[in-house]
Amino acid sequence: MADPRPIILDCDPGIDDFIAILMILASPQHFNLLGITVTSGNVPVEYTAHNALRACELAGRNDVPVYQGAPKPLLREHQYDPAVYGESGLKGADLPVPMRPIENIHAVDFLIEAILSSSHKVTLLATAPLTNIALAIVREPSILKNIEEIVVMGGAMTLGNITPAAEYNFFADPEAAHILFTSGAKIKSIGLEVTHHVVTSLPWFDELDKINNPVSQTLVAMLREFYEYDMKNFELSGGAIHDPCVVAYLLEPELFKGHDVYVEIDTSFSDTRGRSTIDWWGKHGFEPNAYVFNKVDVNGFFKLLTNLLRQFSEVQP
Amino acid sequence: MADPRPIILDCDPGIDDFIAILMILASPQHFNLLGITVTSGNVPVEYTAHNALRACELAGRNDVPVYQGAPKPLLREHQYDPAVYGESGLKGADLPVPMRPIENIHAVDFLIEAILSSSHKVTLLATAPLTNIALAIVREPSILKNIEEIVVMGGAMTLGNITPAAEYNFFADPEAAHILFTSGAKIKSIGLEVTHHVVTSLPWFDELDKINNPVSQTLVAMLREFYEYDMKNFELSGGAIHDPCVVAYLLEPELFKGHDVYVEIDTSFSDTRGRSTIDWWGKHGFEPNAYVFNKVDVNGFFKLLTNLLRQFSEVQP
Amino acid sequence: MADPRPIILDCDPGIDDFIAILMILASPQHFNLLGITVTSGNVPVEYTAHNALRACELAGRNDVPVYQGAPKPLLREHQYDPAVYGESGLKGADLPVPMRPIENIHAVDFLIEAILSSSHKVTLLATAPLTNIALAIVREPSILKNIEEIVVMGGAMTLGNITPAAEYNFFADPEAAHILFTSGAKIKSIGLEVTHHVVTSLPWFDELDKINNPVSQTLVAMLREFYEYDMKNFELSGGAIHDPCVVAYLLEPELFKGHDVYVEIDTSFSDTRGRSTIDWWGKHGFEPNAYVFNKVDVNGFFKLLTNLLRQFSEVQP
Amino acid sequence: MADPRPIILDCDPGIDDFIAILMILASPQHFNLLGITVTSGNVPVEYTAHNALRACELAGRNDVPVYQGAPKPLLREHQYDPAVYGESGLKGADLPVPMRPIENIHAVDFLIEAILSSSHKVTLLATAPLTNIALAIVREPSILKNIEEIVVMGGAMTLGNITPAAEYNFFADPEAAHILFTSGAKIKSIGLEVTHHVVTSLPWFDELDKINNPVSQTLVAMLREFYEYDMKNFELSGGAIHDPCVVAYLLEPELFKGHDVYVEIDTSFSDTRGRSTIDWWGKHGFEPNAYVFNKVDVNGFFKLLTNLLRQFSEVQP
Repeated sequence: MADPRPIILDCDPGIDDFIAILMILASPQHFNLLGITVTSGNVPVEYTAHNALRACELAGRNDVPVYQGAPKPLLREHQYDPAVYGESGLKGADLPVPMRPIENIHAVDFLIEAILSSSHKVTLLATAPLTNIALAIVREPSILKNIEEIVVMGGAMTLGNITPAAEYNFFADPEAAHILFTSGAKIKSIGLEVTHHVVTSLPWFDELDKINNPVSQTLVAMLREFYEYDMKNFELSGGAIHDPCVVAYLLEPELFKGHDVYVEIDTSFSDTRGRSTIDWWGKHGFEPNAYVFNKVDVNGFFKLLTNLLRQFSEVQP
Repeated sequence: MADPRPIILDCDPGIDDFIAILMILASPQHFNLLGITVTSGNVPVEYTAHNALRACELAGRNDVPVYQGAPKPLLREHQYDPAVYGESGLKGADLPVPMRPIENIHAVDFLIEAILSSSHKVTLLATAPLTNIALAIVREPSILKNIEEIVVMGGAMTLGNITPAAEYNFFADPEAAHILFTSGAKIKSIGLEVTHHVVTSLPWFDELDKINNPVSQTLVAMLREFYEYDMKNFELSGGAIHDPCVVAYLLEPELFKGHDVYVEIDTSFSDTRGRSTIDWWGKHGFEPNAYVFNKVDVNGFFKLLTNLLRQFSEVQP
Repeated sequence: MADPRPIILDCDPGIDDFIAILMILASPQHFNLLGITVTSGNVPVEYTAHNALRACELAGRNDVPVYQGAPKPLLREHQYDPAVYGESGLKGADLPVPMRPIENIHAVDFLIEAILSSSHKVTLLATAPLTNIALAIVREPSILKNIEEIVVMGGAMTLGNITPAAEYNFFADPEAAHILFTSGAKIKSIGLEVTHHVVTSLPWFDELDKINNPVSQTLVAMLREFYEYDMKNFELSGGAIHDPCVVAYLLEPELFKGHDVYVEIDTSFSDTRGRSTIDWWGKHGFEPNAYVFNKVDVNGFFKLLTNLLRQFSEVQP
Repeated sequence: MADPRPIILDCDPGIDDFIAILMILASPQHFNLLGITVTSGNVPVEYTAHNALRACELAGRNDVPVYQGAPKPLLREHQYDPAVYGESGLKGADLPVPMRPIENIHAVDFLIEAILSSSHKVTLLATAPLTNIALAIVREPSILKNIEEIVVMGGAMTLGNITPAAEYNFFADPEAAHILFTSGAKIKSIGLEVTHHVVTSLPWFDELDKINNPVSQTLVAMLREFYEYDMKNFELSGGAIHDPCVVAYLLEPELFKGHDVYVEIDTSFSDTRGRSTIDWWGKHGFEPNAYVFNKVDVNGFFKLLTNLLRQFSEVQP
């Protein structure tokens, strides 16, 4: 079996990033998690840092360093939205204050240092506004040579979720997304076309209840709390689980389908700010700059996630 | 039974506009067609005018006046694309040069005059770039008071067909579309979400063959020619019949579903020019300015169209 | 001596358009004024139409037809600003209600008809938002062949006067300005670089007082009222006389200097909407589309204007 | 007398940055130069770093550290233009390869560290594309509290010099300029309205010749080479000395006049990219975010510069 691949997760937990962290920690044979970097999301960066630590502690993994990054996007003030995941970012769970501190190194410095010094190419998992990764690329473009690929949750081919035009992560820092998509990095991108199909359901909650370890208990509490939000706002049949798709793709790529396309991010200060224009049918004839997914095996995804959560049954946090 | 409703069709035939004209002419009990106005489309305005006359002559209706309008969009040069429907705009059919002349009145003047002088409110069917209608509104805003509604084929919630961002009719004259959508008129709008489902099939061609009147023979010849174009370009399972949806909606509104939304047209000179941003989930909270359809009963549509074409079986053009 | 050149003035009086009309009427040996068309400006189109009639009546010229045009710009609602020239558009003067009616033909129809039917090429003087002229060009592009040149008051190389970026006429209808500047017409353009130097002064008012005919009396009353507006708003040393520069140029072209340049009008819906970007140093290398003036002989201008106003001393209105 | 004020120069030498460095080094009683940071400009960042070292060595100041920063702007590829200052960036001078190395710390890290650790607030002099400073602000917003002010060479109220709309420094990295102007920092900004008046002349070259020290000899050689560039391109009467105005302002503020205004940087990907819109007459009523200069005492500037160059007469490089 191959060595676990070196990865860094850049995230903003948030419930769905929280799940993504736990999926990674449940897969040590596949992932060598060099560190977690955080930026601000629906809650401020101090909260997302704490939430990342909480996920590690819940999984009994106090060895994973967490690095705090940029407090706000490149060009705009951050717009927090506690309505999505609550004031803490983890509504529904009542997790203790983390015991460990955040690392004393800036996320951008860690990204540059860890990527440059890795003996194998590093895979980045990006489930937040792309500010940290963009800052690292602009500050030290040579990191691109030692990045295997960047798997991104972000964008939408159709309707956005934060504005009619834009998905949250790309909207929150469109210039950072632009920097990434024009960097020449190998990008794989999972947007709302996929994640709006990956929605929770009451029977699956029942299944999680049966697993009944501390991790599954925490998740099901949060996900039940979030269950109706997307139903009300986006006509979905449950709560969408966006960020975990990135981890699922790396574990079981055959669950996802898409193709190479040219993607452009709207950085105008207009109503379409943050929109990703995806040339799905190759009208422009431009060289593709990303592999964008548009299909997912939803049952396969939930089967994988359920199995991963079972891994925590022996853990004593 | 109600009186036939007074309508004007503003179109750019084109195969699918051609079908729309024939559907109207097959429904004299429902429509009082005051006239047909044309603008340029995939072929120049002189051709679209001739093609409108050809449709009338094919249906034996030499009483319908055809008015030629603006030769080009408000701000941009027109970009013809003979690849779509051929050099004549009616690839696959070999129709004679029309015997009747185009009317000696400009389409914009006719629109203004006909609408202002109608004793009942006029319904506009708009299946082309919206240049003529926009010119009429700006030149004489008082026409808005005597317009019942404007049913438009145009726009896309998801991917465009002329660029990754934009549908052809709105792309061809975005400023005209902007003028319409900010005019306060009652707008109903059918875009690619609907029309990309309304696609031809080989069994339906066989059905048309059986009707075997001059109209159905002409249409099936054109549609067979066009059958594979959308399959190659847009992964559809046949050729999309865009413009006839507007007529079908007026005849059988229950075939279509949608809701009131706020629509904005991108008039920037960027890669997203002509895109319609549709606030489907009401994120902005702006007052809706159009009723946009997103669902269609495809079988119902084809049943209606087939029946209408049977009306021509006694006609001797 | 040459025949008077056939001209049409498209304006929105407004004090400075009012002066422009009087300058034309004082020069019958140079101008054959086919008609005056009006659009809305700082006051609604009905007012500008009345003000144009008032200028004619003040000059005793009841033979000049006035045609009312578009009530609002192509894409935006008109933004009236009575602060500039007062509620009537002619603050400072108390002129009677005009005796003559506005013509019963739309300004756009008149423009098309008059230009197409003229035996000599027509010169357009454009001192208002360019809506009427743009509508005529789009509706009937063939008029371009019988236009000698279009002399425009509009634009700014430096700071705007209605926004930091834009001059009033281009800002009021940027799409119309875009249509004109991309039409291929021969354009001469006088912007704020010129007109912000053409400012009134107290000694000149004294000079006008001495002329003491009904026209000069009316003008000096209005100009005294307007004297301080530009001082307060734009650090000028008097009130700028924008529109009359267009007439002065046609009468004494040697008063103005400039060169051929490429001009682009900003039609974005951003803070720079309506700005004219003038490639003064030919950085782009694009084919020039206008002759733009940047220098004026201010004393020469006022000498010309003073002399023209003396022509009215024998007129009995 | 006051202590010398702690400063950092962020530059891209280039001839005029080169002069700015020498002006600083000639004023040790006024400036405590903590370091020089460089970015790419008309030549790549490795060249600008070498040129900064060359300026220090020419002045016999081997104690000034030089830090290399971002090789390219935030969002765009850098567009080098060797036509301006030659392949080396210092056309006309034949300076030796610098003996000292560039520091082994990234410019952005140095900026953050030096500003945070300074016992007195630091003044930044910014005479290059603003990439380094923007990266520092986004990465560590807390530096803003220990910045006294940022004096910038950049922008234009009127015509640009790299495009018709934009001045070079703001054009080269508009997003970075946007970040700075929305950061809340105290900004003073000197643009082309000022620097296009600060132009070299043949008599002044003669004056420099008489000083005849190694520094003045080098400068006059470069400036003679550059003398005609701006004459040809911008109708100036000599070569513009942009960046040294920033140093001159700090030494003799009374040479410059301006006022508080609201400045906006155009980050659109259109022909106006990089333009600074300056609300000189307060039309918007927005809170000013910069003090922008529009007047300079040209003779005073050259007198100051000449005197500073005399300081090098005792130096033995």
